[in-house]
Parts: sequence; structure tokens; C-alpha cells
Amino acid sequence: MTKAPTSRFKVEVLDGDRTSRREDVVSTEEPLELRLEWPGSSPEPLVVTMRTPGSDFELAAGFCLGEGFAVRADAIRTVAYCTDVTLTPEQQFNTVTVSLDGPPDREPPQRYGVTSAACGVCGQQSLDELAARAYDPVDPVEVPVDVVRRLPELLRDAQPMFSRTGGLHAAGLFTADGRKVVVKEDIGRHNAVDKVVGWTVLNQHSRKGLVLAVSGRAGYEIVQKAVAAGVGMIVAVGAPSSLAVDLAREFGVTLAGFARGERCVVYSAPERIIRPA
Amino acid sequence: MTKAPTSRFKVEVLDGDRTSRREDVVSTEEPLELRLEWPGSSPEPLVVTMRTPGSDFELAAGFCLGEGFAVRADAIRTVAYCTDVTLTPEQQFNTVTVSLDGPPDREPPQRYGVTSAACGVCGQQSLDELAARAYDPVDPVEVPVDVVRRLPELLRDAQPMFSRTGGLHAAGLFTADGRKVVVKEDIGRHNAVDKVVGWTVLNQHSRKGLVLAVSGRAGYEIVQKAVAAGVGMIVAVGAPSSLAVDLAREFGVTLAGFARGERCVVYSAPERIIRPA
Repeated sequence: MTKAPTSRFKVEVLDGDRTSRREDVVSTEEPLELRLEWPGSSPEPLVVTMRTPGSDFELAAGFCLGEGFAVRADAIRTVAYCTDVTLTPEQQFNTVTVSLDGPPDREPPQRYGVTSAACGVCGQQSLDELAARAYDPVDPVEVPVDVVRRLPELLRDAQPMFSRTGGLHAAGLFTADGRKVVVKEDIGRHNAVDKVVGWTVLNQHSRKGLVLAVSGRAGYEIVQKAVAAGVGMIVAVGAPSSLAVDLAREFGVTLAGFARGERCVVYSAPERIIRPA
Repeated sequence: MTKAPTSRFKVEVLDGDRTSRREDVVSTEEPLELRLEWPGSSPEPLVVTMRTPGSDFELAAGFCLGEGFAVRADAIRTVAYCTDVTLTPEQQFNTVTVSLDGPPDREPPQRYGVTSAACGVCGQQSLDELAARAYDPVDPVEVPVDVVRRLPELLRDAQPMFSRTGGLHAAGLFTADGRKVVVKEDIGRHNAVDKVVGWTVLNQHSRKGLVLAVSGRAGYEIVQKAVAAGVGMIVAVGAPSSLAVDLAREFGVTLAGFARGERCVVYSAPERIIRPA
């Protein structure tokens, strides 16, 4: 077990009739417990997520914003590792506490899962619940089509760990003219998005005019996190889900999928991908 | 919103300088709430998972086994949709109740996430917690290397929805000589595994002598579900995580990753992949 983002293992490689032994580099996966506290409260466990160590504070801040525990980024005052001296260093580094300036905007769920919904959950309710959180409208960023096409490659070029392990997701925020703002990798797609959004929170970097690129598929939770962050365009290398498309359309997010080579499929708000006249 | 496993959307396809409009098939994503009940209890919400509708009962049964709420498959007595007549049919079909023959073997977590661990969670604790659940040892299945190599293709051939949507994970159980027992698709990797394991539970099909093939990466939760199901070999098209390798080694599961064409990388118990003398 390690805090390093990659780990080494002795493996057997079977190739045709040959067997060879070598050392392989694998993406590290370790649990991270997030806790919330606010004035007058004591730290309360919120979630345990399996993540690749690194950018843990960004992950924590992005998670709180993306999941609606802090609707405003400036409600997050500090993020810190657990300082309980009775714990081992490894345990301390797997527990992060986010301090808010007041009670969370959303009640921490009583049961695990994406929501604490009562009997009768459905996709429309998920959308309604998100709408009720009163986020600011997403930024209606316009991006030239040639930048949209280059994003997957720009993202891949900024993935040092993927090239060594072959097994990490990435998320990146880019400007409308294709400049990289921040790229993060993680074994979890949703964690990678939390990390880039959290980076903007901790660095007080504006998310206006930015587009989110993701290396994999775009499900509900990815679009939800973009909506929470106010980011108006998502370019995914993989496929979207139905609820992701519904959500993107409801909140005016441009959602492009299967972005590979010269081609992509646009599921919502295609007019904000600017094509040559 | 729909109960069908795929949904249709009008999209724009950008290809080079051309824009075309067409209808696209997208994998459906809808929340599913699982509830647990047992004699003397009333149904209690356990988890909400985003899933592709279809095989919901298998998903529910597999989840309860895989996550340790029912360590023995025969503790699961019935699985049913919610029958609250005040709900819409859509809501009823997104709520499934699993009835156990007694209290769950593991306390439902009080907070969402993979575990309700106290401050100081770490990877080793995840492994220790799993060991404490007292599953039977996994079946030490031996599989010829040529079957291991064919599994990704056999899995792909059994994925009708992937070929239409380009965006679904699959999991399959196969015999050691390469016969398909069951294959299920879902937007969630973990859901697909729950569905195939749950299928064996609901059909009282033995899991002895079977190998689990997955279309994507193999993280901790995939190996955990194999351990819980007693399945002794996993063949993944994608990469493993460090904790998946640690877990596979501790529980004697053969874990092969990057299974593509003639090649695969074996991270644990390679001796059970049988090579020509």
C-alpha cells in the first residue's frame, strides 16, 4: 500500500506461446474518506471514495462543489488532512476534512449511493433535485470546431501516468482557444473531474470561458459536476448516457461525445461549437 | 425517461467540414434504489445506483452478495419491484426490494461511499474488512491460455447493446472451456458484474469452474465482487488497479489484464492459466 500515484508489481506477460516476467506499473487505488465540518459542528464522515492518491485537496473541494454540499465555491474555507495523532501517517493521508463557512447546502445522505431519495426515485427527479440547488446558469462558452477536435489529443498529451499504466482516466479544463488550464488523472472518471474543478476552487481560478474534456464516457454524474461548476461545454472521448443528454439539454450544456480524430457527435447545444462560415 | 435499455436522441455529427443530423442510440441511465427487508423489519433504503434498466433483480441480488449484505446466496429469499400503488409505474420500476431470511450480514452503511469506515481508512483495512466477512475460498479454476485469449472476443460477441450505442460495459461468466454462461451489459462496470453474479443466484446456477470476463478495467470493487461470488479468475480487457492486485493476491484470484489479441498481463496466480506443455 502506498501514497504514490503508481505502484509496481512483478507480473507474467503471456504473448503468443511465450511467457516473460517483468515489473509492471499499475495505477494506485486507495480509499479516501472525506469529512465535512462547519462552525459549531465536529467533523462528520461524508463519503469514502476509491481514488488515485494525489491532488486529494482538489478532489475534496471539487466533490463538495460538484455534489452540492457547497453550492458556492467560497463556502469552502479550508481543506486539510486528518491530524489525529493516534493514526498512522498512511491513515492520516487517507482522511481529508473540508471546512465550510456554514452548514452544507445539502444534507449529507443517510445511506450510500448517489442520493438519499425516498422510494420512487427516477431520472426526472434527479434532474429536478439538481435544478433545486439553484446553481448559477452555466457559462455559454463558444468553442471553434477545430479546438473541439484537438481536445482529446491535448488531454492525452497531458497524461503522464496514463502512458505508464494504461489505466487512468483524465479530465481537463481548457480555454476556448485550446490552452490547457489544468489536467488531472485518476482511476475514477468522476474523481478526475472533481480534481480539476477543485483545482480552480483552491486556486481561485475563474471557470468562465472553459471547456471540460474527459477521456472516457460522459454519464449523469460528469454532466452534473459540470453544471455545478458552471462549465458550459463537455467534450468526451467516449459515449454519453441518456440521462447525461437529458441533463445537458435541460441546463444548456454543450455535450459532444465520441470525439476521435476529425469526428464527434453533438448531443446538445451544438450551436456553440463554431464552424467556419 | 424510459425503462428501455437504450434511448434515441437527435444529434449533429461533425465530421471534417461536414455537419449531418441523424438519430443516435444512447445507453439508458436511470437511478435504481435498492431496499433491504428481513423478517420483523420494514424495507430500508440501502443504496441508489445509476444503472441501465434491465436485469434489475439480478443486479439487486448480485449487489447484496457482492457487497456482503448477504454472504450466503441462499439468504436472498425474494427480489421484487416496489408495489406502492401511490407511485407511478416508472417510480415503481426504479425501486427494488431484496428480502433476506434474517438480518443482513453487514450493517448498512450510515453514510454513502464504499464503506462506513471510521477515520483512518486505508487499503489494508479494506482488505481486512473483506477477509472478516468469512466468504468461502474462491474456486481454484484452471483455464487454458487459449480460452483466456478468446474471452474478450466471446464477451464482445455477446454484447448486443454495445454495438448499437458504443458505450456500455459488459461482464460475463464463462466455463473453463470457453462456453458462455451469462453476459450482461450496463453503463456501470460494477453493475454488469452484479448482474451476472445475481443471475447465478436467482437461477441457482453453480459458480464453480467459472471465470469472470470484464470489458473494462479491474478495480478493487470488481475483484471484491469476484471474491464474494467465489469466482477464482478474472480476465479484464483493461488495466487493474494496485488495490485490485493486492486483493487478488490475498484471496488467490487469478487476475489477468490488458487481454487483447494474443497478449495479456497476469498479475496474480498465473499458474492457473494452463499453457501447452
